[in-house]
Amino acid sequence: MVKTIKIHEVGLRDGLQNEEVIVGFDRKLKWAELLSNTGIDYLQVGSFVNPKKVPQMSDSDNLFKELKKIKHKAILSGLVLNERGMDRALDCGVELICLGVSASDTHSLKNSGMATEEALNRIISMGKELINKGNSVQVSIQSAFGCGFEGEISEEKVIKIATRYIDEGLFNISLADTAGHAYPEQVKRLYDAIKKMSADTILTAHFHNTYGLGLTNCYAAIESGAEIIETAFGGFGGCPFTKVAAGNVSTEDFVSALQRNQKRNDIMVDPIIDIAKESASILGRSTESYVSKAGRIKY
Amino acid sequence: MVKTIKIHEVGLRDGLQNEEVIVGFDRKLKWAELLSNTGIDYLQVGSFVNPKKVPQMSDSDNLFKELKKIKHKAILSGLVLNERGMDRALDCGVELICLGVSASDTHSLKNSGMATEEALNRIISMGKELINKGNSVQVSIQSAFGCGFEGEISEEKVIKIATRYIDEGLFNISLADTAGHAYPEQVKRLYDAIKKMSADTILTAHFHNTYGLGLTNCYAAIESGAEIIETAFGGFGGCPFTKVAAGNVSTEDFVSALQRNQKRNDIMVDPIIDIAKESASILGRSTESYVSKAGRIKY
Repeated sequence: MVKTIKIHEVGLRDGLQNEEVIVGFDRKLKWAELLSNTGIDYLQVGSFVNPKKVPQMSDSDNLFKELKKIKHKAILSGLVLNERGMDRALDCGVELICLGVSASDTHSLKNSGMATEEALNRIISMGKELINKGNSVQVSIQSAFGCGFEGEISEEKVIKIATRYIDEGLFNISLADTAGHAYPEQVKRLYDAIKKMSADTILTAHFHNTYGLGLTNCYAAIESGAEIIETAFGGFGGCPFTKVAAGNVSTEDFVSALQRNQKRNDIMVDPIIDIAKESASILGRSTESYVSKAGRIKY
Repeated sequence: MVKTIKIHEVGLRDGLQNEEVIVGFDRKLKWAELLSNTGIDYLQVGSFVNPKKVPQMSDSDNLFKELKKIKHKAILSGLVLNERGMDRALDCGVELICLGVSASDTHSLKNSGMATEEALNRIISMGKELINKGNSVQVSIQSAFGCGFEGEISEEKVIKIATRYIDEGLFNISLADTAGHAYPEQVKRLYDAIKKMSADTILTAHFHNTYGLGLTNCYAAIESGAEIIETAFGGFGGCPFTKVAAGNVSTEDFVSALQRNQKRNDIMVDPIIDIAKESASILGRSTESYVSKAGRIKY
């Protein structure tokens, strides 16, 4: 059975968090409203992290609160790394709370101040608490395909984390290629392995385009059961605490590719391209998306 | 059975033909010698076209003649579009003669002065003559996945051309995505259809990266039986007679991806990156390859 591929737009969070130019609140709110009504399925509005460490995300609480008052079609998600962030997310009425742990101890320490095992225990505890309270939760495994600091991340370690998630009743799992080291055969092995653990699993994929394999890895993940793909307008992005921070797969490129095959024709690509271009101009850089340079194929 | 994927490096031809800066003969010869000894399987040295129309290719004859005197591991190929070009190629001792026809009448007229059907008849006639003389021949179908001028190219038309090739004993077939419009499901359909026509078929793939799907389409073609992938150092390239000319899949990116999966570790990537960077500097542009920007993954 071919399922409909869902889009989780993470540009406002992953796309902007590493950019030096701070985008103003009103503009972010405008982009969020526009994006949430393009037909994409999930919109990551921001993260609940230390505003001193990631100043670009300091207005996440207010963005959610304002956005909740406005008509929005997409489900609004937010990234949470610790208990304090969880409380803030709950206070804002975040509709999908994304928790995550890095499979790389070095990356985990830089990102959350905890090694993988400790972070995992706390994430699982938070995830269970949230689900018990009736919240929607996604749990991710960052640096799942390799790490800029540590190099290879063993597939056994990633599978062990996924097994813990599933054993604890956390079935909505995202594998994130923070460093952009993934290659398609590896992607298929990991998604195949996790997919067969439980029929309840919902798999998400999140790839960075460091080596140009972002779209390739998305297709590999879909072949092996991923249903939700995380992408960012403009192909912006990169973790502030990784080594070579390359952009996410661009939303407009990925949706355009799906539409070449007559899938997801319900998503409006032009407004996403417009936001990518506007943000490029504000950030003082160019977009990383191909379709915004070459123009859409119209046939 | 998983076959070894072979690399046909086309940077000296497709990569340079659309660049305004003319690369000097000695430098091209140096690059050709280096490339031919990196472990790649085929090296396209140039094309035998009208030097007034494509000045960058005016030294192809001399390049072949000099290169033939030097130790070279790769099989040397050259592109031929008409009888005059064929005679020149034979005179130079080209080791694999690449003939081609465009599936788009508009592109065919611009590229060869003939519509598809007329060009096809002449290409087939030349191909048979060359094979009878004992030469190795590849026949391609350009604009096989869409055309910047005409838009959609029907899969039936492409399959019909491939059927003609196979019926006439021309089994070494390349599908080229001149405009970069291909998407993976389409790639699989076309390769699957042609692969099953004859057990003797050897399939080659040639993708441009206009929409960022170049590598994705390479993997799709391989899954459906392609054995030879045409790539260009630096990701340079583009047909002078197409509408939006975007670069080829970059050799260093594709080989690096294969090597992530422990394939083709016999190919030396560093000299290819060096040539890409040197050529970028001479052409006054930047490379289109990811690995030359991010640095190789060394583990």
